[in-house]
Amino acid sequence: MGKIVCFPSLSEEQQQQIQQAAPGYTIKVGKAKDLDPSELKEAEIILGWSPLVTEHALHQDSPLKWIQVWSAGVDNLPFAELQQKNIQVTSANGVHAIPITEIILGMMLSHSRWLRQAMLYQQQAEWKNPGKALPELHGRTAVIVGVGEIGTETARVLKALGMRTIGVRRSGKDVPHVDRMYDMSGLHEALSQGDYVINILPLTDETRHIYDQNTFDHFKTDACFVNVGRGPSVNTEALLAALQSDKIAFAALDVFEEEPLPANHPLWGMDNVLITPHIAGSTEQYTQRALDIFIKNLEAYVAGKTLPLNLVDYSHKY
Amino acid sequence: MGKIVCFPSLSEEQQQQIQQAAPGYTIKVGKAKDLDPSELKEAEIILGWSPLVTEHALHQDSPLKWIQVWSAGVDNLPFAELQQKNIQVTSANGVHAIPITEIILGMMLSHSRWLRQAMLYQQQAEWKNPGKALPELHGRTAVIVGVGEIGTETARVLKALGMRTIGVRRSGKDVPHVDRMYDMSGLHEALSQGDYVINILPLTDETRHIYDQNTFDHFKTDACFVNVGRGPSVNTEALLAALQSDKIAFAALDVFEEEPLPANHPLWGMDNVLITPHIAGSTEQYTQRALDIFIKNLEAYVAGKTLPLNLVDYSHKY
Repeated sequence: MGKIVCFPSLSEEQQQQIQQAAPGYTIKVGKAKDLDPSELKEAEIILGWSPLVTEHALHQDSPLKWIQVWSAGVDNLPFAELQQKNIQVTSANGVHAIPITEIILGMMLSHSRWLRQAMLYQQQAEWKNPGKALPELHGRTAVIVGVGEIGTETARVLKALGMRTIGVRRSGKDVPHVDRMYDMSGLHEALSQGDYVINILPLTDETRHIYDQNTFDHFKTDACFVNVGRGPSVNTEALLAALQSDKIAFAALDVFEEEPLPANHPLWGMDNVLITPHIAGSTEQYTQRALDIFIKNLEAYVAGKTLPLNLVDYSHKY
Repeated sequence: MGKIVCFPSLSEEQQQQIQQAAPGYTIKVGKAKDLDPSELKEAEIILGWSPLVTEHALHQDSPLKWIQVWSAGVDNLPFAELQQKNIQVTSANGVHAIPITEIILGMMLSHSRWLRQAMLYQQQAEWKNPGKALPELHGRTAVIVGVGEIGTETARVLKALGMRTIGVRRSGKDVPHVDRMYDMSGLHEALSQGDYVINILPLTDETRHIYDQNTFDHFKTDACFVNVGRGPSVNTEALLAALQSDKIAFAALDVFEEEPLPANHPLWGMDNVLITPHIAGSTEQYTQRALDIFIKNLEAYVAGKTLPLNLVDYSHKY
């Protein structure tokens, strides 16, 4: 029988869940760099991703059939080789719907309700009022760019808060909780309506630097831009210029073109920027939720059925 | 016909709304201290509150019949005199449901999703990870102490985020979106279940210093305490001691026993405290929402009917 190699750290109980779903399979758990390369060479199924997979498991006669990536994004995978060897790839897409929706909301409210400024005044022990009435999310418009599982959950919660929701997605197909959906050709029209613009796009050739100067020109001047998608979807120089010239009001950024964001980068010191260090997707519930996806796929795999969850389309690369 | 004196700043259109609801009444708008005392002496209806009302409009032969307070709290009113003169008081309770729910959520997420720490590291241009998986609100328990209109709205939104909701209120009566309701005798049992404890109690003799050492002893040690109710509901020394000894994990505080919080107060400098300067209730939508309450009451008043919204019960003082 085949071998399943798992890079993520898993509890005994979680390993047993895998074994129960694939009786007879040998299961090996360990970080890619700690495992003997022979383990990778013999793997039929890999849970997780590492450049060492390319090195050791994509040769012509490897038994590798399926990689269940541990992240939602798959933009760093060698699609040409994978496709040539006909190796299936599934992502952990969907695992992030709840945690990312929560941090998006936290970022939006940090801005709208002056929490960021209050924290800075707190450092000076200064009781300082905003000096103006603050806006509510209620009644405002959120534009969600990239509406998959995360965006749908985000839209659901923002609707519950009384916001108007606009979505932008490749297919342009409607989803629940999104009041109006555009396809990518309607991006600029959508953006022009957003009090909040939330980027959750995957990174592809099409979405790289999709937020450039021309795109920021279509934002409302009081818009708050939230990026919890991928850093390279944004032309950082264009974002910086938009923030410096008040073409947009605020940016809350969890991802960057270069990570870690260099210590001398001007974004750090800007009053209208909130920076988090790529922590949007990961919470205490991550491992079990991602494992649940893997187990469901594994049960189908063992039964000779199509992998039901998050099978990556090579032509779109997400 | 009678006179209506309005202390809040109102637009022409808003003044017309009042006139339409009470044709024939004379309307006078101005800050209490800027008006001639004779205006107050002649008022049949007052919109807003000022100590000058006690001075000029509570004398034996004043025509004053009704005060529509511009705030949700009425704890600073001279109830004995008002009751003796049989003057009705209505509050702006309900105006705060949306803005306060939003800031509560922002405070909770600032804590759970590490936004406060990220902002402080941002000041140092430091890319620093939490070093641990962060919790989600989803699946956690929120205890809402004081469940009126605000608490009901808060519960609705927290349920939408997948939280368990526990309520505590004087009557103990169920409301929608609260999974389990306690009366005040169940306060400690309720608190012991809370990952988040949200105080929205009005200030009364019964609720003054209700959060004392004994009460904080019933909190979970990883609990986050949010106070957007009234400062004097908390014994500040007891709160400080609970925070300093890690009996509770975090406090997000918008209200204080002494406001402004004195510059030398130890709360300012604590790592596990978020301070906002009593800004939870006021947003851009405040005036119109409060006016809507007044207009609805005014229409009933003019028609000789019972005031339908937020009539204050003298025995409870809220």
